[in-house]
Amino acid sequence: MSSNIFFKKKNIKIKNLFPKKKLEFNFQVKDIKPLHLARKNEITFFDSIKYKEIAEVTQASLCITTNNLEKYLPVKCEKIVVKNVLFELARVTQLIYPTADKDTPDLSLKIPNKSKYKKVRFGNNVLIGKNVKIGKNSIIGSNSIIEQNVSIGNNCLIGSGIVIKNSLIGENVVIQDGCKIGQKGFGFIPIQGKNIKFPHIGKVIIKDNVEIAANCTIDRGSVDDTVIGINTYLDNQVHIAHNVQIGSNCMIAGQVGFAGSSRLGNNVSIGGQAGISGHLKIGNNVKIGGGSGVVKDIDDNEIVMGYPAVPLKEFLRKEKKGNE
Amino acid sequence: MSSNIFFKKKNIKIKNLFPKKKLEFNFQVKDIKPLHLARKNEITFFDSIKYKEIAEVTQASLCITTNNLEKYLPVKCEKIVVKNVLFELARVTQLIYPTADKDTPDLSLKIPNKSKYKKVRFGNNVLIGKNVKIGKNSIIGSNSIIEQNVSIGNNCLIGSGIVIKNSLIGENVVIQDGCKIGQKGFGFIPIQGKNIKFPHIGKVIIKDNVEIAANCTIDRGSVDDTVIGINTYLDNQVHIAHNVQIGSNCMIAGQVGFAGSSRLGNNVSIGGQAGISGHLKIGNNVKIGGGSGVVKDIDDNEIVMGYPAVPLKEFLRKEKKGNE
Amino acid sequence: MSSNIFFKKKNIKIKNLFPKKKLEFNFQVKDIKPLHLARKNEITFFDSIKYKEIAEVTQASLCITTNNLEKYLPVKCEKIVVKNVLFELARVTQLIYPTADKDTPDLSLKIPNKSKYKKVRFGNNVLIGKNVKIGKNSIIGSNSIIEQNVSIGNNCLIGSGIVIKNSLIGENVVIQDGCKIGQKGFGFIPIQGKNIKFPHIGKVIIKDNVEIAANCTIDRGSVDDTVIGINTYLDNQVHIAHNVQIGSNCMIAGQVGFAGSSRLGNNVSIGGQAGISGHLKIGNNVKIGGGSGVVKDIDDNEIVMGYPAVPLKEFLRKEKKGNE
Repeated sequence: MSSNIFFKKKNIKIKNLFPKKKLEFNFQVKDIKPLHLARKNEITFFDSIKYKEIAEVTQASLCITTNNLEKYLPVKCEKIVVKNVLFELARVTQLIYPTADKDTPDLSLKIPNKSKYKKVRFGNNVLIGKNVKIGKNSIIGSNSIIEQNVSIGNNCLIGSGIVIKNSLIGENVVIQDGCKIGQKGFGFIPIQGKNIKFPHIGKVIIKDNVEIAANCTIDRGSVDDTVIGINTYLDNQVHIAHNVQIGSNCMIAGQVGFAGSSRLGNNVSIGGQAGISGHLKIGNNVKIGGGSGVVKDIDDNEIVMGYPAVPLKEFLRKEKKGNE
Repeated sequence: MSSNIFFKKKNIKIKNLFPKKKLEFNFQVKDIKPLHLARKNEITFFDSIKYKEIAEVTQASLCITTNNLEKYLPVKCEKIVVKNVLFELARVTQLIYPTADKDTPDLSLKIPNKSKYKKVRFGNNVLIGKNVKIGKNSIIGSNSIIEQNVSIGNNCLIGSGIVIKNSLIGENVVIQDGCKIGQKGFGFIPIQGKNIKFPHIGKVIIKDNVEIAANCTIDRGSVDDTVIGINTYLDNQVHIAHNVQIGSNCMIAGQVGFAGSSRLGNNVSIGGQAGISGHLKIGNNVKIGGGSGVVKDIDDNEIVMGYPAVPLKEFLRKEKKGNE
Repeated sequence: MSSNIFFKKKNIKIKNLFPKKKLEFNFQVKDIKPLHLARKNEITFFDSIKYKEIAEVTQASLCITTNNLEKYLPVKCEKIVVKNVLFELARVTQLIYPTADKDTPDLSLKIPNKSKYKKVRFGNNVLIGKNVKIGKNSIIGSNSIIEQNVSIGNNCLIGSGIVIKNSLIGENVVIQDGCKIGQKGFGFIPIQGKNIKFPHIGKVIIKDNVEIAANCTIDRGSVDDTVIGINTYLDNQVHIAHNVQIGSNCMIAGQVGFAGSSRLGNNVSIGGQAGISGHLKIGNNVKIGGGSGVVKDIDDNEIVMGYPAVPLKEFLRKEKKGNE
């Protein structure tokens, strides 16, 4: 039984996933998850020293990793040592979730059945997939598409011309016109002039009281989820890549972009057009100036600015020096 | 009688808006407007010394302001002194215009009545709200939505997949596919882990001969309007925040972003991906280089570049110095 | 007979295009093409010394150019010498292709005829223009619009809420939700407070195995085509202007923007939010850092970064110097 409601999962035994490895153990693979979430009979992966501390305590039954990193994993965690972790992970994920590497449009969409959604109001031409949940007093605007298994809480305002897939949305959420939420992220492995598309089995989780302005794009997670925390507000044309996790009460101004897998704390404010590189950790109460390019982790309470972004004092010192 | 055709207005007397203040005067509130537009029986607000000169001659009957600023207001203008002007303004605006703080999708949309729009051509599945005006020879592309009370002039080309609300559009205007125009801007007041959504009672005014390329977003004004002047052209994915006012004959290249309330003169050209901070005054005939980050007012005829943007000569001098 | 399937062409003789020039020759104009593509009875234009080498071997029958540049053209190529090449080109193109200067929405769209598209699967409310070709096993998502004469190859996945016009799309192409492809680019000539819209008679060519993420915009060419090479992947909210030609196996991250007419080689990777100015030549295997602003040609195998972008070593040296 899989917890993944969005993608069909094949029941495969671990020996069949790695036939060349002649494993001396076997189990039915329950799921594929990131290091901190994987449990018994689940597969994880470990490909960067950056995640060493989490790797040391992973509860996964098996981890795909490299020769250099395997020593950090717990003894009880079986290791599959490979050269290209992401390629191997993509191969295995593809075998277990064969439909997650491409966004096939949901072809089961229908005009909503009013008896099913008694306390929901719909605009014209709204299309709803199978098994969609929408809470009471929510409103879905015209020409919007809610694909199968999506869940939307109470009192949400979903605008017009929106597409939502592979997402769980809380209460009192506002999503303005034209947003695209839950599509596959930008993940692939270029090998000999061909791109292996990385299956995206994660989802988008949007927590209560979030507001997302017009024409934003929020990709679903690859192995982990993409998360927008409670009461966080996004302005127009913000781009959130796969696996990004944003805390509560953040304020993300227009056209900000995130590369994949970065984590933001709470009460972070980011000025317009700033860019956040991948796999970063941004602390609580951080302020990032408009147009900045963040390429390093940022501690709690820091104010940064510039390209690359540096603490504000340093930015002003450099500016002053440049003006002399 | 309200001049605001887009939001339902409640008739409220000023004493009822500020019951704790025990005011010695009273009047029926006509509207809420910015300092330079408010007239008799209208409320305005003044929260930055930047607007001192306009405040000194405001014709508003009442102004919400701070202890430090009230002295600049005319004697005949009643003052409401508070700590957080925007919070108080939001509270009052919310009481007068209770539906302007969230974009509830227009649920009165219908396929256009061809006898009403005899000289307009429509694509498929166009949806039109109540009391929409569209001038002769205009064409509206498929799957586009024109919400209630919007007005579109003659000879306009409105593409496909567009949503327009709270907007007045002139003649010969071209709007390309996917634009979202007139939605609520990014305005809220974070108070104790909750965001007070700022009601947006302004509109978008797009003047004659404007061209707006694909997937742009133009937010309506909060208290003032958002304006695009005659013959100004916007390239793809431009983001115009609330209250921005752009003059005539401007050229705004792809992915440029504006924070709120800036004013541009005429004949301004802005290169791709440049960002303009909020509350700035950019003169006539200004040229802003691509990728620049503008954080200060710019005088007429200046050419600026860089992050932060500086006059071109200075930019080149700094570049040269950096290269030594 | 015109090779241009997207725009209606008028049969005009060259003397009628330039009545004031009292030409001593005459021919039926076959087409208007860029210097390297124009052949017998075709018109071309030459307005920058940058294209001198191509101009010297053009096979066009006639070239619109300037006094300074005409000497580089072959003897057998007739010259029309003017002050403003683009204005004259726009005037002539407008006479030959009178409908290419504005994107009139396709009003001939219909729900697809299932007997015509037997091996194609469609979502709800898909709208298809006249003479559209879609290859077998392709899927078109709900609310998407494919305008007349567009061709889509086999095994393509076209998402929801997409508009495609004036485009030829190969096999195994994935286009995610909300993309707008083939619209007129940002081209016009400002003359005395009026903008002459530059007719865009080019198309968009998307080659096999390309993937384009959500809410991207790709403008069609003005005189040349806009091309995305085999196996190139674009992340969300990328903006590709007219005439840009991107090679094979390129990786373009989120919110990257291109001004017009630049050429990229193969295996180029571009980090998020980078901007590429117009009319540049970027070599093969180039890497461009996120947030960079590229304003000069880049040789093969270079790694560049910064604003303006410089070779990585230089960027790091400047950074180090700034930090001293």
